[in-house]
Amino acid sequence: MNQKVEKWGLFEVSCSGKSDGNPFRDYEMTVTFKGDKEEVKVTGFYDGDGVYKARFMPSYEGAYTYEIRGNFADEITEPKGSFEAVAPSKDNHGPVTVSEGIRLAYKDGTPYYSIGTTCYAWANQPVKRQEQTLETLKNSPFNKIRFCFFPKFYEFNTKEPLTYPFERGHGEGLDPKLVELEKTNRFAFPGMRLEEPDYDFDYTRPNVEHFKRYDLRIAQLMDMGIEADMILMHPYDKWGLNQMGKDACDWYLKYVVARYGAYRNVWWSLANEFDFIKMKTLEDWERYGQIVSGHDPFHHLLSVHNGGPNYDFSKDWVTHCSLQRVDFYKTTEDTDAFIEKYHKPVVWDEICYEGNIGLGWGNITGQELVRRFWEAFMRGGHCGHGETFMDPEDILWWSHGGILKGESPARLKFLLDILKEVPGGYLTKGEGLFDEVVGYAGGHTGEGMSTCYDYSIHYLGICRPVERMVILPEDGEFEVDIIDTWNMTITSLGKMKGFHKVKMPGNQYMALRIRKVKEA
Amino acid sequence: MNQKVEKWGLFEVSCSGKSDGNPFRDYEMTVTFKGDKEEVKVTGFYDGDGVYKARFMPSYEGAYTYEIRGNFADEITEPKGSFEAVAPSKDNHGPVTVSEGIRLAYKDGTPYYSIGTTCYAWANQPVKRQEQTLETLKNSPFNKIRFCFFPKFYEFNTKEPLTYPFERGHGEGLDPKLVELEKTNRFAFPGMRLEEPDYDFDYTRPNVEHFKRYDLRIAQLMDMGIEADMILMHPYDKWGLNQMGKDACDWYLKYVVARYGAYRNVWWSLANEFDFIKMKTLEDWERYGQIVSGHDPFHHLLSVHNGGPNYDFSKDWVTHCSLQRVDFYKTTEDTDAFIEKYHKPVVWDEICYEGNIGLGWGNITGQELVRRFWEAFMRGGHCGHGETFMDPEDILWWSHGGILKGESPARLKFLLDILKEVPGGYLTKGEGLFDEVVGYAGGHTGEGMSTCYDYSIHYLGICRPVERMVILPEDGEFEVDIIDTWNMTITSLGKMKGFHKVKMPGNQYMALRIRKVKEA
Repeated sequence: MNQKVEKWGLFEVSCSGKSDGNPFRDYEMTVTFKGDKEEVKVTGFYDGDGVYKARFMPSYEGAYTYEIRGNFADEITEPKGSFEAVAPSKDNHGPVTVSEGIRLAYKDGTPYYSIGTTCYAWANQPVKRQEQTLETLKNSPFNKIRFCFFPKFYEFNTKEPLTYPFERGHGEGLDPKLVELEKTNRFAFPGMRLEEPDYDFDYTRPNVEHFKRYDLRIAQLMDMGIEADMILMHPYDKWGLNQMGKDACDWYLKYVVARYGAYRNVWWSLANEFDFIKMKTLEDWERYGQIVSGHDPFHHLLSVHNGGPNYDFSKDWVTHCSLQRVDFYKTTEDTDAFIEKYHKPVVWDEICYEGNIGLGWGNITGQELVRRFWEAFMRGGHCGHGETFMDPEDILWWSHGGILKGESPARLKFLLDILKEVPGGYLTKGEGLFDEVVGYAGGHTGEGMSTCYDYSIHYLGICRPVERMVILPEDGEFEVDIIDTWNMTITSLGKMKGFHKVKMPGNQYMALRIRKVKEA
Repeated sequence: MNQKVEKWGLFEVSCSGKSDGNPFRDYEMTVTFKGDKEEVKVTGFYDGDGVYKARFMPSYEGAYTYEIRGNFADEITEPKGSFEAVAPSKDNHGPVTVSEGIRLAYKDGTPYYSIGTTCYAWANQPVKRQEQTLETLKNSPFNKIRFCFFPKFYEFNTKEPLTYPFERGHGEGLDPKLVELEKTNRFAFPGMRLEEPDYDFDYTRPNVEHFKRYDLRIAQLMDMGIEADMILMHPYDKWGLNQMGKDACDWYLKYVVARYGAYRNVWWSLANEFDFIKMKTLEDWERYGQIVSGHDPFHHLLSVHNGGPNYDFSKDWVTHCSLQRVDFYKTTEDTDAFIEKYHKPVVWDEICYEGNIGLGWGNITGQELVRRFWEAFMRGGHCGHGETFMDPEDILWWSHGGILKGESPARLKFLLDILKEVPGGYLTKGEGLFDEVVGYAGGHTGEGMSTCYDYSIHYLGICRPVERMVILPEDGEFEVDIIDTWNMTITSLGKMKGFHKVKMPGNQYMALRIRKVKEA
C-alpha cells in the first residue's frame, strides 16, 4: 500500500477507456471506496483523450480499498486498488459544514467565519490575471471566493472568456422554447450592446480544457485555505447557456458534481441571482437542488443566491441562506431575522461592493462595506466582500480579479482576528441598547439595558458618541476595550464593574468589547 | 371701526370679570365673531387678575363684529364690538394646512416644505437662553419648531423649569390610580436619579405666568415665519403631570386650545412618544384628539408622535403622520410607504439628531441627518432636525435651544432653496434606478430605467459614483445639473438628450437635477 492521501485530501483514480461516440454521455464509471468507517460509491467522469477519472475525499484516517466498475472500457486493467488516508496537514481542517444548526465549522471542529469575496469571472480571464488574483488572495483576509463556472456577459464584461464550458457544435441540447423565451428577456443595460446568443455549442459535450482549468484553480484555492463557492448558473449570458434543455442542464450539474465534489473546499451555489434567469422556473431550481444534493457523496454546502426575493431556504437540500441585500438601505441588519426564520447559517453573498462605478451596488465606501460585515458577524452571520473601482483597463476585482484597491480588506482582516479570539468560537446576537448590536459568547444575566454577558462586543455602527454607558454587575469584574473597527486599534479601558460612562473618541464605527475576568 | 387686524392675524377681546373661587373652571366666556364669510364661536379663557380673554383669527378680509356672552361677570361692560380684517402683510401666508390630500401649504396657497427643528424645553429655560434661541432661529433655515408645553425631566434636563404649568396646591385633579401606576413606570436611565414626583400642584389651576410666556414665544415665532409645533404631553415627567385625572387633563387641553388656537402658526402635537406614557391608554389619546379637534375653531394641524409603533393616523382627527424613525437603520426611506398607507402628509419629527452624546438617537453625523432629509423630501415628505452635542454647561439645542453647532443647518437651507424652485411647488416620488430616489414634478414618459420626467431630482445618497447613466428621450432637450448636497454646489452639465454617461465627482450625497427645456 504505497499510495497515501491526507484525510479530506483528494484521491484520484484514472483509467483508459473508450472515446467513440459521445464518451461523456455514452459510458459510465463508478468506483466504490471502502475504509473502516465509510463506504462511498463515487461516479466517475470522462476527462477527454480516452481517460476516465473518479475522485474521492476520505473522511477518516486509515486503510482504504476501491473497486472500479463500468462500461467505459471493454476490460478495466486494474479494477481494484488501495491507499492510506493519513493525518491531515496543519492547515487542512476538512470541509466547511453546518454546525449547531446555525453555525459554520470545519469538519475538524474549528469554527469558520466566512470572510468571502467575489470575483465572478476570474477563472475565465487571461492566465496572467488569474495568477495575479491568486497572489492577491494569498495576501488577503478572504477565506471564501465566489465565482462562476460559466462565462459572464455584463457591463465591463464584454470580452470573450479564455475557454467555453462546452465544445463547439450546432446547439445540441438546446431547448427551442427557451431560445424563443430568451428573445424577450435579453439582458442589457441601456447603452450596452444587445448581444444575440451564439447557440453554436454542443451542450452535451463539456470542453475539458475549461473544466481542467477549474480543477487547477479549485485545488490552488484549497491549498491556500480558501473555500471555492462555485456558481453553477447565472443570468448574465450571451452564449445560450441558459437555453440548455432539461436533459443537458441536469447532466451538466451531475458532471460538475462528479468532477469537483472531492475537493474539500467546494461549495455549491446553484445560481447567482436565480430569479433573474427568466428562462428557469422554481421547479427547475428545486430539481437542480435535488440533483446536486443527491449526487454529491461529500455533502458540500449548497444554496441558491437571489436577485430580488430570496429562495425558500427551508428546503431540505439547502444547507444555508445565501443572501443578497434586503433592499438598498438594509442588508446584514436582518441577519438574526434570517437565522430565526430558517434555523440555518446565514451568509450574505452580496451586500453592495466597495467602489465607484455608476450603479449603486458597486459604489459604496469601504466604511459602509465594513459596517455591514460587523452587523452580520455580531448577529451570528457571515458576509462577503466585493470591489468595483473604475479601471483604465476595465479590470474590476468583483469580476476579473487582479489587484485589490480598496480600504476594506485590511479592516476585514482586523475583524477576522477579533472573531478568532471569541471563546467557544461563536457570537450570538444579544440584547443591547437600541443603537448597538451586541454579539455575545458565554452566559448572561439581567435583561434590557442592564443585560450583561460573560463576553460581548457592542458594535455602534454609524453612531459617534463621545461617551457611552457601560452597565455591569456591581460584584463582578470586567475588562473593557474600545475597538476602533476602521482605524484598527484596540484600547483597553482597564477593569471595571457597576455603572460607568466611559469616554469614547467621537468617531463612527466603534465597538466596546467587554470580557468577564472575575465572577460576580 | 378703528380696530384693524390682518387676515390670519390674532384679534383679542379682553374683559374684566369675577375672580372668586376657581375662576378658570367656575366661569364661562364665549365670543361670536361675524364677518361676511364666516361666523365663528370662540371660547374664552381666564387669564388671571380678574381678566377674561377670547382670541380670534379671521380667515377673510373685511368687516367683523363680535358679541361676548358668559357668566364671568355680572354685567359685561362692552358686550359688542367690531374690527376690520385687512390684507395680510408680505410674510403672512396664513396657517399651514393640508393641501391635495398629501401636501402641506399655507392657506394662501404657497407650498410649505417643513424644515423643522426640535428644542423640547427651550421655552422653559432662563429668559436669556430663550432670547438666544430666537436669535439663532432667525438666522436658520427652520420654518417649524417642535417644543413641549410641560417641563422636561431627562438626561441633561434635571434642572427645574422657569415656571410650572399649574399653580402650587395639594394635588387637586390628580388620579390616585395613576399615581400608583407611575411608581412601577418611573422613567430614568441607569445612572440617573429616580425622582419621586412632587404632586404638589393644583392641576385645576393653570399658572398664568407659564401660559403667558408661551403666548409671547408663539407670537415671536409667528412673526419669524416659524410654525410652533406644540407638544401637549410627553413621558419625561417628574412633576406628576401625567397623573392628572381625566377631568383635569381634558380641561387642560381645552384651555390650551382656547388660549393658543388663534395663533396662525400653531400645530397641535398631542404627545411626544405617546406610547411611552404608560399611564395613558389608546382611549385617552382618542378622546384627547377629539377634544382638541372639536374645540379648535381654526382647525390647526393635529397629530400624535410615537416612540415605538406609530399612532393610527387613519383617524379622522389626525391631519398628518408625525413620525419617529422606523428602526435604527431606516427612517425617511419609508416616507412614500406612509403616504401610500394613510393618504396624508408625512412629517418626520424625529430621525435621530446630529451630535455626539452617548445614545444613538443623538449622535449621528451631519451627513447622515442631511441624507435623511433628502430621502424624505424626494419622496414628498417633510423632515425635522435636532442637535445634541455635548456641552460643558449641558446646553443641548435639542432640548434647551441656545446656539447651533452642527454642520447640517446650512445644508438644510441649501435643500430648502432647491425645493422652493420646484415648478408647481411639490415633488412626487418617481421611478428610478434602484439606488436612487427620484422626486419629480410635471409629466413623465416611459418606465423603469428609461423613465423620464419634465423635472426631476435623482438623489444618490450614500453612493459615490464617478459616472452615471442619464437616459433621456432622443428628441427632447434637458438641462442636467449635478447637485452636491453636502458641499452645496450646483454644477450645470449643459443641455443634452438621449443616453449619456456623465462624469460624477465620486463623492457621497450627490444628486442629478434634470429639467426639460424643449419638448420631445
